[in-house]
Amino acid sequence: MNKNDNFNVIEEVKNLETEYRLSNTQKILLSTDGSVTSILDVLKGNVNIKTLLQEFHKADKFMAELLDIDEGEEVNYRVVIIRRKDEPLIYASSYTPIKRLTKEFKEDLIRADIPIGRILKKHKIESRREVQAVEVKTTNKELTKIFGTEVDLLSRKYNIIHKDNILISIEETFPISSFTSDF
Amino acid sequence: MNKNDNFNVIEEVKNLETEYRLSNTQKILLSTDGSVTSILDVLKGNVNIKTLLQEFHKADKFMAELLDIDEGEEVNYRVVIIRRKDEPLIYASSYTPIKRLTKEFKEDLIRADIPIGRILKKHKIESRREVQAVEVKTTNKELTKIFGTEVDLLSRKYNIIHKDNILISIEETFPISSFTSDF
Repeated sequence: MNKNDNFNVIEEVKNLETEYRLSNTQKILLSTDGSVTSILDVLKGNVNIKTLLQEFHKADKFMAELLDIDEGEEVNYRVVIIRRKDEPLIYASSYTPIKRLTKEFKEDLIRADIPIGRILKKHKIESRREVQAVEVKTTNKELTKIFGTEVDLLSRKYNIIHKDNILISIEETFPISSFTSDF
Repeated sequence: MNKNDNFNVIEEVKNLETEYRLSNTQKILLSTDGSVTSILDVLKGNVNIKTLLQEFHKADKFMAELLDIDEGEEVNYRVVIIRRKDEPLIYASSYTPIKRLTKEFKEDLIRADIPIGRILKKHKIESRREVQAVEVKTTNKELTKIFGTEVDLLSRKYNIIHKDNILISIEETFPISSFTSDF
């Protein structure tokens, strides 16, 4: 389950900083083990999400390894944009093994446009977050269109762990030109 | 246990902003439900703590109510400065009911100068954090001396919840002149 137990997010962010000038807010968004939703809420005002994709899959080899489940088990794959009003802030995709969800959590994940941080809070889920990777990526057509810019993207992958298992595996991405001002 | 369940930290920070100009970093430090240690690590470099006080008390009425324990139960009270090298960053006090700690957690809490966020991570503790209060306070002699400034202080109180009980109740304080630059 802890394939990347030795990953040190602080060191990795420092490595990125040898090439890129990152703001405090960017560094926190890349490394925090807290809710990104609540950080965006406090910086931007109450955020909402727009769901781009919501699918159920039988886990293939990639998903099974990612989530530490068996191939064929059911996985929710969700792609959303976290927004302030209509302004896109963060593009996020998540893989969630259905068998690890309570009925109530599953309903919130599937039915409503609720950010995952807010679902965890609502159901008082005790968890921890393990950042697996941080990187700078070149953009693509979809993200250029969403964010209205062709600049590089900051991205991170992390797992939300609950009862010693991966509850959700998340990737978050935003333009390197975002979150650069201090106030 | 959830005396302050309706407390909305985002709203409270917004209220403070009507009177004070807060930086993004300050707002995140006041509101995050993640580890403050790891935020400081990524912003400042690897932080350390200096323990000012480490005491064991039989819980009085105040502590019993704060921690949802019985009067007379054993409580660890710890006051530390979180520092980058010798630079003081955050003044933090914590109340911890001993009966809720594992042996290993207790040893780390008592023996070594390890920030609580790092202890939780080391022992892979699944938890959630509930912010109970955020405020601006006038400083006092002790904090003026520690931080070398007489400006007002930003402060917050929060509980770390584990297995539905308060594991640690923490207050963190820093000068309103700290964490104001963006890079």
